[in-house]
Amino acid sequence: MKVDRHSRFDTMFYPETVAVIGASDHDGFSQALMSTKLRNRVFLVNPRYRELHGRICYRSILDVPEKIDYVVIAVPAPNVPGVLSDCIAKGVTTAHVFTAGFSETGLPERKALEDEVRDIAIGRINLVGPNCMGLHCPASGLAFIPDASTQEGTVGVVSQSGTFAEQFLSVGKLRNVTFSKVVSYGNAVDLDCPDFLEYLTHDPETRVIALYIEGTRNGDRLRRALTEASDLKPTLALKGGVTPDGERAASSHTGSLAGSPETWRALFQQTGAIQVEDFDELLNSTLALSCSRLPARKGTAIVTNSGGFSVLETDLCVRAGLEVPRFAEETTRELRKIVPLAGTSISNPLDAWPIYYNLPGKPGTLADAIRTLSHDRHIHSIVLHFDEVSYLMRILGDAVESLLKELIPVMVDGCKYARDTMDKAVMVCVALDAYSEDEDDRRYHLMAKNAFEAEGFPVYPALGPAIRALFNLYRYSIRRGRP
Amino acid sequence: MKVDRHSRFDTMFYPETVAVIGASDHDGFSQALMSTKLRNRVFLVNPRYRELHGRICYRSILDVPEKIDYVVIAVPAPNVPGVLSDCIAKGVTTAHVFTAGFSETGLPERKALEDEVRDIAIGRINLVGPNCMGLHCPASGLAFIPDASTQEGTVGVVSQSGTFAEQFLSVGKLRNVTFSKVVSYGNAVDLDCPDFLEYLTHDPETRVIALYIEGTRNGDRLRRALTEASDLKPTLALKGGVTPDGERAASSHTGSLAGSPETWRALFQQTGAIQVEDFDELLNSTLALSCSRLPARKGTAIVTNSGGFSVLETDLCVRAGLEVPRFAEETTRELRKIVPLAGTSISNPLDAWPIYYNLPGKPGTLADAIRTLSHDRHIHSIVLHFDEVSYLMRILGDAVESLLKELIPVMVDGCKYARDTMDKAVMVCVALDAYSEDEDDRRYHLMAKNAFEAEGFPVYPALGPAIRALFNLYRYSIRRGRP
Repeated sequence: MKVDRHSRFDTMFYPETVAVIGASDHDGFSQALMSTKLRNRVFLVNPRYRELHGRICYRSILDVPEKIDYVVIAVPAPNVPGVLSDCIAKGVTTAHVFTAGFSETGLPERKALEDEVRDIAIGRINLVGPNCMGLHCPASGLAFIPDASTQEGTVGVVSQSGTFAEQFLSVGKLRNVTFSKVVSYGNAVDLDCPDFLEYLTHDPETRVIALYIEGTRNGDRLRRALTEASDLKPTLALKGGVTPDGERAASSHTGSLAGSPETWRALFQQTGAIQVEDFDELLNSTLALSCSRLPARKGTAIVTNSGGFSVLETDLCVRAGLEVPRFAEETTRELRKIVPLAGTSISNPLDAWPIYYNLPGKPGTLADAIRTLSHDRHIHSIVLHFDEVSYLMRILGDAVESLLKELIPVMVDGCKYARDTMDKAVMVCVALDAYSEDEDDRRYHLMAKNAFEAEGFPVYPALGPAIRALFNLYRYSIRRGRP
Repeated sequence: MKVDRHSRFDTMFYPETVAVIGASDHDGFSQALMSTKLRNRVFLVNPRYRELHGRICYRSILDVPEKIDYVVIAVPAPNVPGVLSDCIAKGVTTAHVFTAGFSETGLPERKALEDEVRDIAIGRINLVGPNCMGLHCPASGLAFIPDASTQEGTVGVVSQSGTFAEQFLSVGKLRNVTFSKVVSYGNAVDLDCPDFLEYLTHDPETRVIALYIEGTRNGDRLRRALTEASDLKPTLALKGGVTPDGERAASSHTGSLAGSPETWRALFQQTGAIQVEDFDELLNSTLALSCSRLPARKGTAIVTNSGGFSVLETDLCVRAGLEVPRFAEETTRELRKIVPLAGTSISNPLDAWPIYYNLPGKPGTLADAIRTLSHDRHIHSIVLHFDEVSYLMRILGDAVESLLKELIPVMVDGCKYARDTMDKAVMVCVALDAYSEDEDDRRYHLMAKNAFEAEGFPVYPALGPAIRALFNLYRYSIRRGRP
């Protein structure tokens, strides 16, 4: 049975031919699909065009001369039943209905239209939606936004909201999150959240699951699916509508029965899913879980270049649920050999600004400091805060580029030692403000970011998100029963 | 007495001549001061150079042929007492000691050195520091980082940490925060936090006060200064070291007696200062308080283009302490006339994506929607989430630039109506990820950001910070006894 269900979903995620019904010269689905490996197997349908994007545009799916596995339906809501019937007649196996304007409007006639769609589909075609973005799968070429990463990865996403799924893909690409499958399932008249969760749970390509949900019609199935998922893989869950006003917003968005925040909190806790509070925490924690070691305990070392910020960063860590313990005596002794006295602090947090930009050959580098503290028995995670670019630009001018080319590998080496030899979780913050307009400054920061990412470290533009993600690594570590 | 104290501080903040003792070819102070209106009144001192930056470099402050009002001392700690004595002999009125390595090291001999510095200074010269960045004042030209904004503004900052003050200036510049005075006071052997607070309280150029503090030696004076400041001006306070580990970090950073987090919380509450949790909240709330109307009540309208995000944004608002009430019936009726049905929600949050990019002449624009809901009696604040750029780029290609040139003024107009005619607090989020590498995307976002800023709106790159800042506007509104 499980095998059959699985192969049903494989058929959905790995089609060989795709059609976009309601294609136009600016629809995102056509653009997205024509930019992946499916590009030569995409057929466009819209009676208003004879040609689109230099291809034939067919009047109806029935006119397409090849067998079609997967269709995207993007026609006005009242036309969906007719188009869906055509797809069934054509032998299409999966239909994704992008079109909105069904039960989520709260209007009885639109609910009736949705019921009609369901009655047509059930048992005849796999239906995703309506009111959603559908399926994204880099390995097959399925895609719903044109600029998404086509790199095959390990993160599976199940989202009740379409924009949420889009945003997860877009920002995920900037943060080096790579995806196995992304699902936006919308009103779920046929395939629902638990179906996709079950699939991802057993999907060998998926190693981390991220869920965004606003409500469900079947709490028991969701509970079973979440339990099974959490048993096998780190499963992060974000519930939208956990406040009274938010609950009302959720019900007007997806028409979901939201349930009380407490019910959901208990559900996640009992199933072992890691509940997070917002989009950023979900994305950032997904990144961490997809590439970092797990910290065995709470002890975290902060490596920074500012006394003031080291204090605030310590507060952030402790408020998040971690600890920033004093280094062991032998660690402090070793650090004092390489970090000069004035303006520094070699306790934990380590504010070691004078050696931040030392290159090998100098008495001590940042890599030496990281190596030293990674031996500390109280330390299970290291948060490295790199924010020296503008300072270096000021004292070095254009020479900063050649310095960074030597300095960044030194820092990366220290972090690799801590991770690979000492088995520590290492989070990197390459601090950059979204509104920064200095192109050199941005370029240097991105140079550092890319170097850490190339070695598989999770990198964050601010420290708060890095620390919240680290705490979720710890939560998962506890769930896995790590000592 | 007050007048005398005030004129003492005016002398410090408005010097006519400045010297940097320990100047070098890459020190930030020389570079900073030589890029402001003081540029021709900056004298450089360092026995190791005869010339620096194309100017004479003097062996000693005693060799400078002019009267000097303000010196920056950046020499090794053991040399500070001698240099300071020279400054007194020279008749300098204010000395800022940048040099670190005093009591904050925890070493008895360094504490003794600090005591020596104090004994030399008290009664003979105004001493700022040691271990700090000193004073920044755009109106006089005092500056401690080269790339700070030289625009005269209304925000006064008092910071125990130097990097914190630098960062506040740097990020503040990106966020359109403009400063009256910024103080980094460090170990405060002479002038301490309450001194600067008192001055800013009565400084006519300062309309909002932001404080970063790790500890104090004189709680009673601080209490009085905070009470007076909060009575007259919005006063935001961030305490570093509010967790056990953070408290330890603070004491090793500034050697402060930190006091318990509860003591500090009570202090801020009793004095009327608005306590915030981290750097970002302090900066973002300072921006809001320096330019926004105050919301009379909690009712907030969210204007967005995504159902899923509108739910999460509502949760964010409510968790922050605000409310997202349903619009009044007449508001909904009016909105329905301009917002089409499918995929939208015209309750609050308003998810009105189909009209987001309508230009005047179309049946309804975003400005029309904002105008309509700004009349709602339940609504006291509006949060506008603008995140349409990548969508518009996808459907319009290069034509997006000309559309945005028309669309952005429409949105700005709607917001101006809500603020200026209807007296609502309006927060704008132009969503942009720090690691975004698409230069066009960034340019368009910054175009929107700059347009809103030019009309005096607070603009944020993410919604969470905007909402936390809005809640602090509300907290201040309550403190002012607004109905």
